[in-house]
Amino acid sequence: MDISHTSVAGQADARAPLAGFRILELGHYVAAPFATRLLADLGAEVIKVEPPAGDPVRQWGARYKGSAPWWSVHARNKRCISLDLKKPGAREVVLDLVRGCDALVENYRPGQLAKLGLGEEALRAARPDLVIARISGYGQDGPDRDKAAFGVIGEAIGGLRHLTNHAPGTTDLPPVRVGVSIGDSVAGIYAALGVVAALLRRARTGAGGDIDVALTESVFSLLEGALPEYGTLGTVRQPTGGAIATAAPSNAYRSRDGIWVLIAGNSDPLWRKLAGLMGRPDLAEDPRFVGNQHRVANARELDGLINAWTGTLDAEALETALREANIPHTRVFTVADIAADPQMRARGMVQEVEDGLLGPILHPGVVPRVDGVPNAPRSTGPAVGADNDAVLGEMLGYEPAHIAALREGGVL
Amino acid sequence: MDISHTSVAGQADARAPLAGFRILELGHYVAAPFATRLLADLGAEVIKVEPPAGDPVRQWGARYKGSAPWWSVHARNKRCISLDLKKPGAREVVLDLVRGCDALVENYRPGQLAKLGLGEEALRAARPDLVIARISGYGQDGPDRDKAAFGVIGEAIGGLRHLTNHAPGTTDLPPVRVGVSIGDSVAGIYAALGVVAALLRRARTGAGGDIDVALTESVFSLLEGALPEYGTLGTVRQPTGGAIATAAPSNAYRSRDGIWVLIAGNSDPLWRKLAGLMGRPDLAEDPRFVGNQHRVANARELDGLINAWTGTLDAEALETALREANIPHTRVFTVADIAADPQMRARGMVQEVEDGLLGPILHPGVVPRVDGVPNAPRSTGPAVGADNDAVLGEMLGYEPAHIAALREGGVL
Repeated sequence: MDISHTSVAGQADARAPLAGFRILELGHYVAAPFATRLLADLGAEVIKVEPPAGDPVRQWGARYKGSAPWWSVHARNKRCISLDLKKPGAREVVLDLVRGCDALVENYRPGQLAKLGLGEEALRAARPDLVIARISGYGQDGPDRDKAAFGVIGEAIGGLRHLTNHAPGTTDLPPVRVGVSIGDSVAGIYAALGVVAALLRRARTGAGGDIDVALTESVFSLLEGALPEYGTLGTVRQPTGGAIATAAPSNAYRSRDGIWVLIAGNSDPLWRKLAGLMGRPDLAEDPRFVGNQHRVANARELDGLINAWTGTLDAEALETALREANIPHTRVFTVADIAADPQMRARGMVQEVEDGLLGPILHPGVVPRVDGVPNAPRSTGPAVGADNDAVLGEMLGYEPAHIAALREGGVL
Repeated sequence: MDISHTSVAGQADARAPLAGFRILELGHYVAAPFATRLLADLGAEVIKVEPPAGDPVRQWGARYKGSAPWWSVHARNKRCISLDLKKPGAREVVLDLVRGCDALVENYRPGQLAKLGLGEEALRAARPDLVIARISGYGQDGPDRDKAAFGVIGEAIGGLRHLTNHAPGTTDLPPVRVGVSIGDSVAGIYAALGVVAALLRRARTGAGGDIDVALTESVFSLLEGALPEYGTLGTVRQPTGGAIATAAPSNAYRSRDGIWVLIAGNSDPLWRKLAGLMGRPDLAEDPRFVGNQHRVANARELDGLINAWTGTLDAEALETALREANIPHTRVFTVADIAADPQMRARGMVQEVEDGLLGPILHPGVVPRVDGVPNAPRSTGPAVGADNDAVLGEMLGYEPAHIAALREGGVL
């Protein structure tokens, strides 16, 4: 599938859920661009405004042919225009774009756009029913709104870092960072949800709306019962490492060839089967391990026994044995395992795509899947300013001389 | 604020984004109920159908006055009716409900509802423009669709478990589970997004739609550039513990009183300030630590030096010093820290609520925030079947004798 960028970035299938909606992104890094990528994946036309030097993510992570493969995905299905918001004339371009857009998604520091003449009043004067979604570290108000937003710090304030660790007393190593920008990404999904909900309200009432997503709060929203438990009982939830606090055995166990294999044997029948498979049916009758409550209380011993057994088998043999015994399990997937997985392939979650700049590349599919079909990307992440002429010329109707003047002035 | 359940569960402020939409939940555990809670938080009327024995989450986690405080949040803003889907007559009640609903959210095993006479055809016969959102472990098709869905296994297949670990060779401890049901929750947010996007399309085209969310794929969607990097360069992303692969120093460091404090000193000026604060300005000139690239290459040594310093100060003194030096930092928040945080309180993210069953309790606020106001919950999680009479009688117009017969037959 060749999906070279120039042709179709804005042209989704008319049946896509968000076909016909136009979203302006004033974003950088992860959160806002991820929100708009999700909206673009669902069919919206997204116009991303970037400084002429480019979004820093263009250089993040591994590099290939001079740019980050991540960019191919991060900016797919978008049109990219360059604009130096600090230059005179840039503000007017943004407001012209706003006039033609249904929503704006931004993740500048709170108040920053207002300083550039792009505060709420100016935006709403250009487009009264605009939906404005703002993503920030701490939210648009409150005593901490002006603090610098670092993802890892927001994740710690949201409570996730404390819980992503081995049980107290197990190790001196620090709590682990969730190995991805979880706070930014979850904030991005919430922002996408907020934009679409506000557009649905607009369809009913005609009014725009404001969506305010904080990275800290997005993370905190994932904490299940931790807050009401603290509020009623005063209990402070603690981390449990690879295990689950309330069920055993459930953990990652190491095979002889050093691969971690998850085993969820945490019901009486499953545990009985597992003990049999281990050649230790006696353990299923051992009072320390009879019933989930006892197994949880003695989980470290239990995990030690299971680890001693898994360490005698290579991962492939271990997985075969678990599969034949019908015990839920999986090896811990690396991205290589994902790329080769028949289920991921069958569902279009791993797609081979031709990137105009990078050549053949793998893209993840669209989540959520709509109407039973895996959606293919319409385009891959374009070069800086690739759509300047198309957007400013065709969409806004600027004369070539006007565009040339903006280019000469360093605005583009 | 007293928000006893009986009065207002379905009655959101007319300005709420999803006011006027009615959603039916055939859900249990975390994913589908979390999706509908988000929709309810945004103003939708949600009717949750539960087996007479109740959703298992009513007993999950810590218990207080005989039930889980989590439930107060997990089922807030919802109406709960009981229904034994395996009993004759239950199917007709569900179809009567479907007729009056805009969307259905379910997380049964794929095909399970069809076996109960509630397949797509029956649902669409009752309500042709219904939006149907299904959440499952692996998706509604493909070779693995019938596999049992365990959250921890789905998270491992999605690639997150591998990345949430100390760097290879650092420890024999297993990769850590993200300390919450991250896969279920992220799948729930995606399902909410899918429902609202499909409703927005329905407003334009009149047609319903199908949303298919897999837990594995929801997790995989968070993996940033891992797949395109693998596809172009063949590199397999590896975990980096508490650090970030591309910037240093950034990690959690332990204070003298044993509290983990995150420090993000990962720019040249910030590192210079930090070295000064440590009383080691010479380190900023040390060739091992000049420039981010060298710092990343020598991150373990660097982290060791910083840890040696943080270990001489109690967390409070450490935080004061970092704050005065303007170096981004935070202690790793527990839920107790969150509950006391002025920013969380100011933003309405920690709210004191009166639960009709449990008494005073803390609820997290609504994410995303809409129109600049923190939304208060309209009601707390109700008892099993609390809304049977209201929903079946007032909404569906069933006669009291009809409801009594359903109750006697064990259908309710």
